[in-house]
Amino acid sequence: MEKIAALRCVECGKAFREDEAMYTCPSCGTRPDGGWGILDVEYDYERQARLFHKDHLQRAERNIWRYLPILPLADNAKLPSLQIGWTPIMEFPELARRWGIANLYLKDDGRLPTGSFKDRASAVGTAKAVELGFDTICCASTGNAASSLAGFSANLGLRSYIFVPAHAPEGKVAQLRIFKSNVLLVEGTYDEAYYLCQEAAEAFGWYNRNCAINPYLIEGKKTAGLEAAEQMAGKIPDWVSVAVGDGCTIAGIWKGFVEMKRFGIIDKLPRLLGVQAEGAQPIFEAFHAGDETVRPRRPETLADSIAVGQPRNQTKALRAIRESGGAMVAVSDEEILSAMYELAQKTGVFGEPAGVTGIAGLLRAITDETVKSTETVLHIVSGNGLKDVRSAQRACPDARRINVSLDDVRAIVAADGPRPA
Amino acid sequence: MEKIAALRCVECGKAFREDEAMYTCPSCGTRPDGGWGILDVEYDYERQARLFHKDHLQRAERNIWRYLPILPLADNAKLPSLQIGWTPIMEFPELARRWGIANLYLKDDGRLPTGSFKDRASAVGTAKAVELGFDTICCASTGNAASSLAGFSANLGLRSYIFVPAHAPEGKVAQLRIFKSNVLLVEGTYDEAYYLCQEAAEAFGWYNRNCAINPYLIEGKKTAGLEAAEQMAGKIPDWVSVAVGDGCTIAGIWKGFVEMKRFGIIDKLPRLLGVQAEGAQPIFEAFHAGDETVRPRRPETLADSIAVGQPRNQTKALRAIRESGGAMVAVSDEEILSAMYELAQKTGVFGEPAGVTGIAGLLRAITDETVKSTETVLHIVSGNGLKDVRSAQRACPDARRINVSLDDVRAIVAADGPRPA
Repeated sequence: MEKIAALRCVECGKAFREDEAMYTCPSCGTRPDGGWGILDVEYDYERQARLFHKDHLQRAERNIWRYLPILPLADNAKLPSLQIGWTPIMEFPELARRWGIANLYLKDDGRLPTGSFKDRASAVGTAKAVELGFDTICCASTGNAASSLAGFSANLGLRSYIFVPAHAPEGKVAQLRIFKSNVLLVEGTYDEAYYLCQEAAEAFGWYNRNCAINPYLIEGKKTAGLEAAEQMAGKIPDWVSVAVGDGCTIAGIWKGFVEMKRFGIIDKLPRLLGVQAEGAQPIFEAFHAGDETVRPRRPETLADSIAVGQPRNQTKALRAIRESGGAMVAVSDEEILSAMYELAQKTGVFGEPAGVTGIAGLLRAITDETVKSTETVLHIVSGNGLKDVRSAQRACPDARRINVSLDDVRAIVAADGPRPA
Repeated sequence: MEKIAALRCVECGKAFREDEAMYTCPSCGTRPDGGWGILDVEYDYERQARLFHKDHLQRAERNIWRYLPILPLADNAKLPSLQIGWTPIMEFPELARRWGIANLYLKDDGRLPTGSFKDRASAVGTAKAVELGFDTICCASTGNAASSLAGFSANLGLRSYIFVPAHAPEGKVAQLRIFKSNVLLVEGTYDEAYYLCQEAAEAFGWYNRNCAINPYLIEGKKTAGLEAAEQMAGKIPDWVSVAVGDGCTIAGIWKGFVEMKRFGIIDKLPRLLGVQAEGAQPIFEAFHAGDETVRPRRPETLADSIAVGQPRNQTKALRAIRESGGAMVAVSDEEILSAMYELAQKTGVFGEPAGVTGIAGLLRAITDETVKSTETVLHIVSGNGLKDVRSAQRACPDARRINVSLDDVRAIVAADGPRPA
């Protein structure tokens, strides 16, 4: 593909042609102990600048395919018919004032087709599978990557096999089943499901959608950054807060912003606020220790989408956060649930735990003055709260039962007291 | 408000000023045995045509407030900051061919802020409550109207009391709680919760959001018709299929199409295919008997959003379907679940039971040749499947459990056989 200049290994820096590497770097390979030969797609930006400019964006449809000139798909690729992308950015100045910052913006990726940010990656991944001639695609996922792969496979007529840890939330598994994916509930951890999926892909000749090793998936994720940059051109926020699990998402969002600056659509870059759950914080630890690789650990957090103990995109993530002049915080599960409730009750936006972890992190970062009172923040809500109803139930008080009686209502209203200002 | 010409009673035809009637017709009142003095908002269309035209639409933002000139809110009303409306319409020609029709379009209202069509009504209802000076709003709902009211109340800082039958799906109730609504689980039927809510609104001076009696809510619902008309101008479908419970939704959608024709944005109207669940089909029965009012009955269907035994907007609904030259069908719960699975696995769009009831009805209408092979159909998916995961679990086969073993995978792949064409 002429627009792709190289696939470059983030570890050794070697460049490869597309036909030389399907997944990771042929020299570095993958090392379970940490360092991974993840490849990064580099474009011929000079060439693509002739196609990708303000006029093009003015005319293009409001979905991720407006970015096709800088996505790793042929110009005539078969694309999914599910509308994907251009999710709204909403402004909440009153809540920002209450929290002590200059402004708060939310980009609600819970509105994507299957309800999560991962749809961006799956849209590109499934289209790539079709382009490469595969009829079956697979992935291992704690949930959202899987349900989104299932939805886009259904849409494009691909067969999918999905390896899910047996403890995944039932709402997410129901989504897989309704899309007629071949769901395999693996009696093991996420990491075990991951390796089993990789083995199966090799054994049966399936396309492997795992973001960790597939260099094209992150290109889908970067569309969130491309969109946010375009939607906020002229008022680029000081910070973008993002929950971090594997590290691929925050690296993708960063790449999107950087490319938009390269093409002259924006003239300023935000700083990244990476947020991990305390029970799964290897990237947080490496960031603060000044290390370039992480120490794997067994993850323990209710935010299942970021419960990753051995993040494969650690290098890309750490580089992105450092390049941006950013920061990393870690938050407890209680802070995540509290942020979920606080955000929903003040804005009407209901995110799943990982989807609001960035808000919990923001509140920490405001307290410790990492984020200043004069600064603006964009948070990307990466998953719909309906995906994990149990966590929502834990986050807020029970509903009250009454009989069919006005007196019962009266008693409750009296107990509630007057409406607070 | 100068743009509103009258509130006209659908029963007696009398016209009222806005300050003469808050909810239903002062002459007819409300009669629990069937006929209801529901009011319809009539605009000064001649006056508004000076503001509402193609140029205005060209410039206006892609949300429901582009229709403010024909919505019952002041031009300077305080509007919610949650992005609402302009949900995508997607085309599925291959599935249409398989089903034997000319084309199938889906408008996915599961992408709205709280995941259902009802957000359109709640956005207008909450803004109206603020405009009228209320600080508390209430409703009785089987679920979606409630969760959407809770979300928009949270967004606008209104207090909300919500009366829900105690058997409502837990995903929907969790949504209410997360938005910090005052949820009252009423140990009774939907109808009992409805009357209790009405009593409480009167007793405590709350604004009543119930679509049944509040004339402004349907104006929010009509935005789905306005949008669909605008999005499909030049290729208006032959049919629009809509699930029918209370009747307010189908009547609202129809009003939207009719207004767009009046303003010259479209030149053709679709026919309405109204679809009820067999266990709650009073409007279906009245339609086929040629009656103008329905016989109430106790509703029994898993599609909780349309489980209405005594539809208050029967008159508007029956008129709309008849005016359109439309048809009505009723479908079993099994057909609804089967449509849910079929649609999700072929398109990637996952709707809740009521959200795909129109698809089950369409399949019936194709079989009995009500919808012809040369015709095109738009279906509005009115609620996100994640709202009712239990029904999805009933609709499709279980996921399979395996050990961390490639042999386990191999056995399953062999059993699945080659990928069907």
